[in-house]
Amino acid sequence: MRISQLSAESGVPIPTIKYYLREGLLSQGEQTSATRAEYGPAHLRRLRLIRALLEVGRVPVAAIRKVIEAVEDERTDVHTMLGTAHYALASPPEPHAAGDEEWARARDDVDRLIAGLGWRVGPFAPGRDELAQTLVTLERLGMPATEADLLVYARTAMDLARDHEMGKIPFDGPRDVAVETLVICTVMYGKALDVFRRLAQESESARILEA
Amino acid sequence: MRISQLSAESGVPIPTIKYYLREGLLSQGEQTSATRAEYGPAHLRRLRLIRALLEVGRVPVAAIRKVIEAVEDERTDVHTMLGTAHYALASPPEPHAAGDEEWARARDDVDRLIAGLGWRVGPFAPGRDELAQTLVTLERLGMPATEADLLVYARTAMDLARDHEMGKIPFDGPRDVAVETLVICTVMYGKALDVFRRLAQESESARILEA
Repeated sequence: MRISQLSAESGVPIPTIKYYLREGLLSQGEQTSATRAEYGPAHLRRLRLIRALLEVGRVPVAAIRKVIEAVEDERTDVHTMLGTAHYALASPPEPHAAGDEEWARARDDVDRLIAGLGWRVGPFAPGRDELAQTLVTLERLGMPATEADLLVYARTAMDLARDHEMGKIPFDGPRDVAVETLVICTVMYGKALDVFRRLAQESESARILEA
Repeated sequence: MRISQLSAESGVPIPTIKYYLREGLLSQGEQTSATRAEYGPAHLRRLRLIRALLEVGRVPVAAIRKVIEAVEDERTDVHTMLGTAHYALASPPEPHAAGDEEWARARDDVDRLIAGLGWRVGPFAPGRDELAQTLVTLERLGMPATEADLLVYARTAMDLARDHEMGKIPFDGPRDVAVETLVICTVMYGKALDVFRRLAQESESARILEA
């Protein structure tokens, strides 16, 4: 298909497609004449992935480039490829000073918790720092989290991941579709879960207070 | 205590405290001389609540004013007071045009789902619109949510709210402490749950792909 049709099918405006081509996020089409290039289904899939990362995951373009590199390099195994997407979705805190004891203790607590759960999580997973930051904030606000509190959320998350979420990823299809599915499911069902929590709390508040 | 001590105890800078006083978010201290006012524990509690809404909940000042009004007006029952905080934490989408059929269908689906769950949720809870927006986005991305998918997240949210979250709210203490606890727990454990989901997915990915 021509670039105009690629734009119509993907919903991405032509100037944006040209920007992705210049940035190398999208590979060039097959040049069929001096002014005309031909695009195929792989380009459509790639555009969907870029949109999912940008619009759904709010991933910055520099981080999208890393994800795309992992998708394109077939020597990158699927687990590592999905990991680049997971890590791109994180919003880790600013680096902490080496002497910040409160922070160091929280980070140790997180590492011990994850090890205790037996989870296979990389030592540099940004979620470790994000979780430590959450613990520091709760402590600073005078509502420190207990290990029992954290385990409730950890086990709830694992039940969802194991029984409902990872089964949705089409591991055997094109690599960019697997990454796109992971990003959309992680972000959008994360949003749904957040909203459901507030609605459930409202409902429980009505029940408890007999309002 | 004097304003300097109130600042030291709360960690809120004096100019910020003066701004809250001017804005009426914090009540004036007891004037003990022309240049000196005395503040008490109620002021400290109020500052903690404002910080929780601002820094943890990222609630805009105009919305914080509404929450504070509900806290101060003793005729507002506790359920309604907590509801103002819940609604202030929402980020509902832009209003949709009346003729937007995709949106109207999604909003109907949400209302039917909540009714089917038997949840006691107000008809104007912004979570209804937030959830409808999530459904529209998933549909537009070619990954429509099924009712079975949504029920998994709804039930998970209710288990958390009923068994772990609402029990943490000190309903019998000062009204601002109840709201502060709700805001901090909802936002910070929401963040923790989001991070745990990504970590659990990474661990499951390692297990499934034997990486």
